[in-house]
Amino acid sequence: MSGHEDFDGQVMGDKTYQQALVLMDQQDPLAEKTAAFEVPRDLVYLDGNSLGCLPLAAKQRAREVVEQQWGQDLIKSWNLHQWIDLPVSAGEKIARLIGAAPGQTICCDSVSVNLFKLLSAALAMQTGRHVVVSQQGNFPTDLYMVQGLVRQLGGDRCCLQRVDDDDIGSALTDDVAVLLLSHVNFRSGALYDMQAITAQAQARGILVIWDLAHSAGVLPVQLDACNVDFAVGCGYKYLNGGPGAPAFLYVASRHQSQARQPLSGWMGHLAPFDFDHDYEPAPGVAGFLSGTPPVISMSILDAALDVFADVDIRQLRRKSLALAGVFLQAVEQSPRLSGLCLLSPADEAQRGAQLAYRHPHAFAICQALIAHGVIADFRAPDILRVGFSPLYLRFADVGRSVEVLTRIMQEDLWRDPAYAVRHKVT
Amino acid sequence: MSGHEDFDGQVMGDKTYQQALVLMDQQDPLAEKTAAFEVPRDLVYLDGNSLGCLPLAAKQRAREVVEQQWGQDLIKSWNLHQWIDLPVSAGEKIARLIGAAPGQTICCDSVSVNLFKLLSAALAMQTGRHVVVSQQGNFPTDLYMVQGLVRQLGGDRCCLQRVDDDDIGSALTDDVAVLLLSHVNFRSGALYDMQAITAQAQARGILVIWDLAHSAGVLPVQLDACNVDFAVGCGYKYLNGGPGAPAFLYVASRHQSQARQPLSGWMGHLAPFDFDHDYEPAPGVAGFLSGTPPVISMSILDAALDVFADVDIRQLRRKSLALAGVFLQAVEQSPRLSGLCLLSPADEAQRGAQLAYRHPHAFAICQALIAHGVIADFRAPDILRVGFSPLYLRFADVGRSVEVLTRIMQEDLWRDPAYAVRHKVT
Repeated sequence: MSGHEDFDGQVMGDKTYQQALVLMDQQDPLAEKTAAFEVPRDLVYLDGNSLGCLPLAAKQRAREVVEQQWGQDLIKSWNLHQWIDLPVSAGEKIARLIGAAPGQTICCDSVSVNLFKLLSAALAMQTGRHVVVSQQGNFPTDLYMVQGLVRQLGGDRCCLQRVDDDDIGSALTDDVAVLLLSHVNFRSGALYDMQAITAQAQARGILVIWDLAHSAGVLPVQLDACNVDFAVGCGYKYLNGGPGAPAFLYVASRHQSQARQPLSGWMGHLAPFDFDHDYEPAPGVAGFLSGTPPVISMSILDAALDVFADVDIRQLRRKSLALAGVFLQAVEQSPRLSGLCLLSPADEAQRGAQLAYRHPHAFAICQALIAHGVIADFRAPDILRVGFSPLYLRFADVGRSVEVLTRIMQEDLWRDPAYAVRHKVT
Repeated sequence: MSGHEDFDGQVMGDKTYQQALVLMDQQDPLAEKTAAFEVPRDLVYLDGNSLGCLPLAAKQRAREVVEQQWGQDLIKSWNLHQWIDLPVSAGEKIARLIGAAPGQTICCDSVSVNLFKLLSAALAMQTGRHVVVSQQGNFPTDLYMVQGLVRQLGGDRCCLQRVDDDDIGSALTDDVAVLLLSHVNFRSGALYDMQAITAQAQARGILVIWDLAHSAGVLPVQLDACNVDFAVGCGYKYLNGGPGAPAFLYVASRHQSQARQPLSGWMGHLAPFDFDHDYEPAPGVAGFLSGTPPVISMSILDAALDVFADVDIRQLRRKSLALAGVFLQAVEQSPRLSGLCLLSPADEAQRGAQLAYRHPHAFAICQALIAHGVIADFRAPDILRVGFSPLYLRFADVGRSVEVLTRIMQEDLWRDPAYAVRHKVT
């Protein structure tokens, strides 16, 4: 990688502007949190919305759980190091970030698997209704999991209706059992009005499942206050839990006595180590556990969550919007960047912590950015996505990313044939 | 922990016998494998059947995947370090240990979740049949997952019939869709005849799912040769993949075009990063993936599997039987241990890699063993379980464990009230 020293002072090279960004960093109440992360030098990382950076506490915990707990204490660690409590303890740390009172959030499995549990449970509670409504542009796995359930139960017991955003309201008819929505759209970054939509659906007797993959840990989520029924979310994006970190799910207290999920593995049993012949769910949200949890990955997530312990989620929101604002404004004001068409809502109140731009050569531009030390990501067919994870990103970093982007566009660096080769994953 | 120096030479103290064990270790072709593991000093670990020891390669890989791949290379690691290939690459390493040709084994999720996938797929292939037969004494989660499916589909589409071992043959009637069996019973260690039972069931048109949790990696399993339909297994026992390591599943090639599972998450899609609206399964066993894999836990398992690369599984079998034989014989010959009643089959050809003994005070005896540096485990209501994981256990260790056990029984050390307190997990 060439680094980006060569860009210094050439593009966006207004000293006053750069000094302003430095000042913003100096005044940032979250500035010291950057030191809690291992952020690679010479890299501007705008992909915390895909995979968060490594918290130092998680690095330390990884060594402990592997080398001391597994290596030395072995099977005794289930009690000695509270492995058995991890789904609950990590779940409660997440609960604080999503406006959930204790006893409703648990850490387990993947978003996909957890969606299957909640969809099944919700559908079974809705006698006589069989439609699941979701966003046309929802993250594919959310839709795929509904399709899997449709296939399993048969179309007379479950069917999927995908609607455009503008049609959500009119789709909420009396045959709808469940409304499944992503809180923030993974492509555009559009933020949905959890309170209004939840209320609107519930007024029609519909249960609502929110997918918090792109909102948990980066903006205020108020599940209890919004009277949400169910939710899922992801551990490896803004929660910084590491690649493929376990996910979480939320079941509102009022539904816990009735909601039953079909993946009734032993960890969700009332007394797993009694080895009873018959399944009896643990009371509360613990009945939504299934098999043995991935202890190492979950321990690492558990440690990563401690970074949030002294953070006000509203501070995170303010900072991520301010970071995005710096980027947005710079793109708007640069003639060289006029080919980038903002897909995200311009109104910051209506978006999450990312910006998405359309460009016919978005893929090559993204590759050129990566080659020049700015990690962004690409979403087919033509979207450049930049995420603003506020715990470790600095205003000066954002300034740097715009400099690099400007240089790439100004000098047509993205036309390098090397940047046209499609990755398998980005 | 007190260690066990005080037992030296007092019990089982025949020098000739101890020298014989040392000689067995010297002649053991797997002896050098012990050095590939981090085995705590002064500990005899007879619980590799619950949680295998830490391979040094796994410890090293844990640091790499956390500190270099996640910490430094971040999102690029999906390609750069082949995270995206892990389910297949780890799966194929396991395939070699279970007699499966390439393209049929994949690493993912937990045993419980994988059972749900396979049970659903198999049941959907069996038009007009709805009974799932399993062992009365099968591991609870296997039975619980069937119960979850029954609850979801309704009794007219799925029901569970649990039978005693002697009644398996007569239970295989024309309304049976699936036979779900554990290859080795988790309590008794009894080994089932995979070839004969599979053939018997298939002759009645029944699909067979084997749970290899207590056989994979410790005894020869011949899935292809036995014409098995489906299988699942566990990563954290004899495969030494770490606490809660991902599980695996096997779908015979001949079923792959027809078998469809309902947990149809994006990782099982034909082209996950095309973000298609509709689910289309990847060809082959990859269609049985669901959500994003726990990369850190799976990387560690992947490294742990390399320990098996130059090992003949028949050598592992011979050694684990020989280790168990030393224990068995010593217990048989010691009047002090006559209260321990062997639950496992006496014929070694009919058991896995563990021995189980009944004793009214099994719990306290197990606790006393642990306190004196011998890790065994207890299974309710009265079973003491000792496992013989052949990659890191030495004959001298087994000799030591019998010494400690003898002293505990001879001096009634298990009567210490401290050993009567029940753990939450053992």
